Amino acid sequence: MKVELHGLKLPEVKPGDDLAAMIVGAAEEQAGGLKPGDVLVVASKALSKALGLMVRLEDVRPSREAVKLAEKTGGDPRHVQLILENSDRLLLAIPFGGLVRSGIVKLEKMAEDVKRAREALRFASCELAVEREKQIYSNAGIDFSNSPEGYVTIPPANLDGVAKALRSRIKDLTGLDVPVVISDTEYWFFLGSLDFARGCSGLRPIARKLGAPDL
Amino acid sequence: MKVELHGLKLPEVKPGDDLAAMIVGAAEEQAGGLKPGDVLVVASKALSKALGLMVRLEDVRPSREAVKLAEKTGGDPRHVQLILENSDRLLLAIPFGGLVRSGIVKLEKMAEDVKRAREALRFASCELAVEREKQIYSNAGIDFSNSPEGYVTIPPANLDGVAKALRSRIKDLTGLDVPVVISDTEYWFFLGSLDFARGCSGLRPIARKLGAPDL
Repeated sequence: MKVELHGLKLPEVKPGDDLAAMIVGAAEEQAGGLKPGDVLVVASKALSKALGLMVRLEDVRPSREAVKLAEKTGGDPRHVQLILENSDRLLLAIPFGGLVRSGIVKLEKMAEDVKRAREALRFASCELAVEREKQIYSNAGIDFSNSPEGYVTIPPANLDGVAKALRSRIKDLTGLDVPVVISDTEYWFFLGSLDFARGCSGLRPIARKLGAPDL
Repeated sequence: MKVELHGLKLPEVKPGDDLAAMIVGAAEEQAGGLKPGDVLVVASKALSKALGLMVRLEDVRPSREAVKLAEKTGGDPRHVQLILENSDRLLLAIPFGGLVRSGIVKLEKMAEDVKRAREALRFASCELAVEREKQIYSNAGIDFSNSPEGYVTIPPANLDGVAKALRSRIKDLTGLDVPVVISDTEYWFFLGSLDFARGCSGLRPIARKLGAPDL
């Protein structure tokens, strides 16, 4: 049995871009086109950008709750505000910067380039684990880097619905019904980076085969 | 960028088998042979079988602790004994059979074939989450099915070491230094089945790139 994974390189996605068309085009150019049996995995960030889900940090007015929590944890009140706005429940606050300063967490163990890590810490000195649409996210899935200067990226709500819309648009363009998975990278301090499937359409993500023989 | 995954079909592995030679042979026949850049993912079970890590249930003498825990949770005392023997710490006991009988857990949601699931429950009416070599396993990674009748399969200890030995043997056979990952399937009731990397040799499993740009 053989499975092929193709990494498609897209140009920088901008608000209003037809992401489905960009993906179909990139698949044509770089992987011989979409085919029956393919499953498409799309980074949540690409969808956020296409949907224009970017916020200018300058425009964020932190609530009193956000200011308090930011003071306690050493985070940026505007970051905390955006995280709280985009989550259903706060589960855990990790004062990452404080843990580094007190020597409990060693930055050298978490980065190849300690200088860059120290700079990143200025923007990520507090990590909030939250519940959002029944899933656990660090910082509500909001990305405070990798966006245009001064902007942050918000993950789309209802990722299954977003996957469905993308799948439907790809069907319009190509006639093919390609299952879509939306993934997002999580960085948990001691565990490194890991991609999670956060939403999907056109496939059953969980096999429920208790008792079925597997040999 | 393109990555290929090849699933290699091996014959049933028996104690004393040279698993490295079987894998090299299967790769030749089914995937054009091992090549530089390949990474080999091997199921922990195949290693257990090659290493003869099978125990006859009849020969297991449950301790008093195992008998007590089995009574409390509805498990088989011999299973409980083997799980305790093969773990460093008991974290959690889930009386799965009891949860099903009391209607809290619905078997129809967990299986396509409810009759088979009910039979499987006889052998798995209790699930113990344990710590083993700094990792969390359900039932210590012991498999009470998929073994010859009356036998259960124990996962090898020191999986990084086992991966290293397999990698070294493959190097002897082929001259190639192929990184090895040992994986095992976990079944957590509500989550479906998921494969975890449990040990490895020849690669760094965690990227520590805090602060590094990813665009």
